[in-house]
Formats: sequence, structure tokens, C-alpha cells
Amino acid sequence: MFALKKTTKAELKKVQSTIKNELASEKIIQEIYEYIFISEGKKTRALLSLLASKSTDIKSDSRINLASIIELLHTATLVHDDVVDESELRRGTRSVNQVWTNSYSVLMGDFIYSKAFILMVKLGTPSILDELAKATNDIARGEIIQLELFENKQSIELKDLLKISYLKTGRLFEASAKTGAMLASRSTEEIETFGLMGKALGTAFQIKDDILDYDALRLDTGKPALKDFKEGKITFPLYFALKQASTKDRNFIMSQLGQSKILIKDQNKIYQLIQNEKTQKEISALYEKYINETLKHLNKLKHHACYNEILDLIAFSRTRKI
Amino acid sequence: MFALKKTTKAELKKVQSTIKNELASEKIIQEIYEYIFISEGKKTRALLSLLASKSTDIKSDSRINLASIIELLHTATLVHDDVVDESELRRGTRSVNQVWTNSYSVLMGDFIYSKAFILMVKLGTPSILDELAKATNDIARGEIIQLELFENKQSIELKDLLKISYLKTGRLFEASAKTGAMLASRSTEEIETFGLMGKALGTAFQIKDDILDYDALRLDTGKPALKDFKEGKITFPLYFALKQASTKDRNFIMSQLGQSKILIKDQNKIYQLIQNEKTQKEISALYEKYINETLKHLNKLKHHACYNEILDLIAFSRTRKI
Repeated sequence: MFALKKTTKAELKKVQSTIKNELASEKIIQEIYEYIFISEGKKTRALLSLLASKSTDIKSDSRINLASIIELLHTATLVHDDVVDESELRRGTRSVNQVWTNSYSVLMGDFIYSKAFILMVKLGTPSILDELAKATNDIARGEIIQLELFENKQSIELKDLLKISYLKTGRLFEASAKTGAMLASRSTEEIETFGLMGKALGTAFQIKDDILDYDALRLDTGKPALKDFKEGKITFPLYFALKQASTKDRNFIMSQLGQSKILIKDQNKIYQLIQNEKTQKEISALYEKYINETLKHLNKLKHHACYNEILDLIAFSRTRKI
Repeated sequence: MFALKKTTKAELKKVQSTIKNELASEKIIQEIYEYIFISEGKKTRALLSLLASKSTDIKSDSRINLASIIELLHTATLVHDDVVDESELRRGTRSVNQVWTNSYSVLMGDFIYSKAFILMVKLGTPSILDELAKATNDIARGEIIQLELFENKQSIELKDLLKISYLKTGRLFEASAKTGAMLASRSTEEIETFGLMGKALGTAFQIKDDILDYDALRLDTGKPALKDFKEGKITFPLYFALKQASTKDRNFIMSQLGQSKILIKDQNKIYQLIQNEKTQKEISALYEKYINETLKHLNKLKHHACYNEILDLIAFSRTRKI
């Protein structure tokens, strides 16, 4: 993804192989499992956990295990999200519900979730278990709130979108950083700081994701464009665009929102509306707000081994195209 | 359900209210949650846990909490199963996927699972957490194996059906009895006995469930008949009937299996084939085998406070119509 330290890179590789080793005995599960993990993904949450848990005092094994647990939890939510969103693609390849069926996706998600909990128990730190169980619960809660909110599209407020972003994305970033720090036996205050940093970084990541869903129309990255829009989701860029748009344009947008097929000329028009100068200013300002918030908390962690690598992660977050 | 001791009945009521108190802040979640728990169900697993945890040495609160956790886990699997099976009814009322959508069911299941794990962490006994995380994983594994097996209907063996029954049903019965005994700080040997008893009882319950799916055609209980059959599932009665049937009858059965609409005359014919004397003998023998196995283990627990009530539970299992 970006210039990671050699040791961190090796650790992320170990996360991948730990996950692979947790493959079950049944052939079908192994097949689906391997399919899911072919496309390796960015592993941002696992990375954040690895960085937060850096310490000379703890064994590398438990750090790798914690990062693997977090990656498993994240993957389980993705597999279930694909059912919820009726997605056809995930990380550029066909999603599990497409290659197999929704039924397999539901059960595979459950299998992965419970595998993550088995590994958490093995890790043996109750506070980490508590934090990750609560984060998992919050993610499901965020998805349910989002589902209901988008059935009533007219009355969405920025605070609703921020709440959903926090629950769906910020929450697991927060838990990744926090539990990493817990594993390294940091002070209560430092654990808190790691959590707040993760939360802000996760929200920034989500805002960037929302922006890239539109930018994919112009970028040659292979990422499908307007996926959120076609799923009927009002994300941050669309929220600001709707605020700016004339009644006519707003009606046009709402007529297209949630359609699975959109004419190229209409896609271009939607893109233009998102590119509106004031809209771009507002979305940039929101993004910068959360990046600055991340930096503010990170500044309290200057003495940590992870400081420079987290700075790199933020820089990557700014420039990433996928 | 049957003549429970007054104290046990009161405890089961507390399980119900504990679950209700765990309702989240969001209105939509509360609505779905309450809908799920309107139909109270038999709570057999919660009961088994309450009986196994009986002891003068532990606080009633943690026993209620453990039973509630087990009931939550079971409910989460039911909500997800309804998506997997595309069910229209659950416990006589429309299932969540029908009243809301599959998406809500997937997320509500995740919400309930993670809520159960939060409560488990609070309970604070790692061995219980470990057992329940593993049981949850085994349930998902059992469902996946079943899904794949039924895509290849010709080659099903009794051992496959027994394995699936164990993973889908016996496993949580086993964990309910085992973790109850763990909570009461029983000896390793006794915990083992409780587990083996639960496992056998769970398998007997599943066999009975399979029988009742056909018997519902003749019983006036409001339970939908041939649900398993219409979902394409080869259960124990059908397995034995297929073994007995002539090629013509077998072809007839296979042509109807998995059809959502079956003519009354064809339903009657299927019922008659299940009623075949040798088939009935084989299914009864299998059922008795697991009841006897349950009794064998229960006999080692004669000195326990739960002995008579578990005997009642077995008697109920024999005569139940729903």
C-alpha cells in the first residue's frame, strides 16, 4: 500500500497467514474462506492495531493474533454487507453472494465472526474482548440505523451521516487502536488517546471512501464507480451536493438515486453536481477536520514507536485512489 | 410448556425480562427485537442451562444471565436461518425477513450475536466464553455443511445427517448444559457428563423436530407442515423413507422435494410414505437411542438438584406436539 517499515510489512504478512491457518477442516469453508482472502485488501485496521500494540514488552505472537482478529471481524462485516447491499463486487472480484449465494454469505459471516471470538478468548484479555464485542455490536447497530434512514431519504442531516460513519467505520478503527494499546499495557490515558485518534482516522477514511465512490468515474483504478449511489446511499459528497443543488437538480438526483443502471450522460451529470465548487469545499473541509483531529491526538503520542508510521498512514489516506 | 417447578418458571420469566432489558437505544432495533421475542418459544436451551447451573453456591443473577445469553445466541441463529431458508414463518408468526427484509434479518442477527458476546464478557468466566464461542462457530459450520450437502441430494448417509444434527442442534444443547455446570463450578467429570447428556438430548430434540415437520400435517397445532421438505431438506424421517421406497416412489419424492407448493394429494402421498411401518420403526429406534443415551448420562447426576426436572424435560420431549 505504501512505504511500510520492513518489520511491519512482515507482521502484516503474518496476519494473512494466521488467518489462513484458522481455515476449518471442511472443504467448502476453506474454499469460500480462501476466495474471500484472495483479494488481500488494505488491512488498514489490522495495521492500525499492529502499530498501536508496538512495544518491547509483549510477544509478537499476541500482536499478530489481535490484528488477525480485527481483520476477521472486519471481513465478516464485509461478507454480510454484501448481502445487505446486494453487492456484485467486493475488492474488484465477485462477492461471495454472487459466486455462491446469500445463504452461504450469511453463514460464512457467522463462521468468521465466531472464529474471531474464539481467538479473542485465547488472547485472554477481558478488556480487549469487551471492547471488540461492543464494537461489533455498534457496527451492526450502525448498519441498521443506516438501512432505516435511507428508507426516508428526504430528512437526512449531517449529524445522522456522522453517527453512521462513526458506527460503521470509525468504531472499528477506534477499537483497533484502543485494543492495540491495551495489549501493550499502555496507561488508561494513552489508551483513550489511541481510541480517539482511531475514531477520527476512521471517520476520515470513510469520508475519503465516499469521495472515491464518485471519483472512480474519472480514475482508472478498476474500482466500480457510484456503487453507493446505485445502492441508494446518501453519503457525505451527495449530502453536500443536495444542499447546493437547485430544486430541478435535486429532483434529478433523487430520481436516479438507488437505480442499478444509470445512463452514462446521467452519471456524468451526477458527477458534475458533486464537483460543484462549494460542494467540494465543504467535503474537503469536513475531511480536513477529521485529519486534523487525528493529528491532534497523534501529537500526544510522539514518543511512541508507532508515531512515524501512523503519520505515513495518514499521508496515505490523503493520497489513496482505491 | 410443562409442569415446571415454580422457581424454575420464575427464572425463565427473568430470562425473558433480561433479554428485554438488553434492548438497545434505537427505536428500530427495539421494534424488531420485541417482534422476535413476542413469540416466546420453548426456551429449551435456556431451561437446560438453568437446570445445569442449579447450586446453592452461586448467585441467581449470573445463572439468569447465562441462560439469557444462550437464548440470545439461539435466537440469532434462528433469525439468520430464516434468511438462509427463505422462511415465511417462525414460531407461527411471520419471520423478520418477511416483516422487514433479509437485510434487517442479517444485521439483527449480528446485533443479537454481539449482544450475547458482550454479556458473556460481563459474566467473566473464560471457559464459558470459550465453549459458547466454539458452539456458535460449530452451528455456522453445521449450516454450511448442510447447505452444501443438499445441493448433492443423492448421496446422503445417516452419518452426515447425524453430524449436521449435532452441529446445528446438539452442539448448543451440549454447550447449554456444560456451561451451566461450569458456572456452578462442578468437577471436570461432571461438566463432561452434563455436556454428553445435553448433546444426546439435543439430537433427540432434532429427531423429534424432524418427525413433527411431517406430523404437523395431521396435528391441529398451527405449525406449518412439510416446511423442511419444501425447503429441500432431507431429514431423518425422509432419509429412512427413501431407503424403503420403491424406485417409483423415490423418484416421486425427489421430484417434489424443495418445491414450495405441493398439491394436497401429493402431500398426503408423501405423508403415507413416511408412515411406512419399517420407516416408523427405524425413526423410533433412532429417537429412543438418543433418549436412552440422555438417560444414561443423567443417571450419573442423580444427586443433583436438577435431576427430576431434567427427567420432566425428557418426558416433555417425548410427548410434545410443537
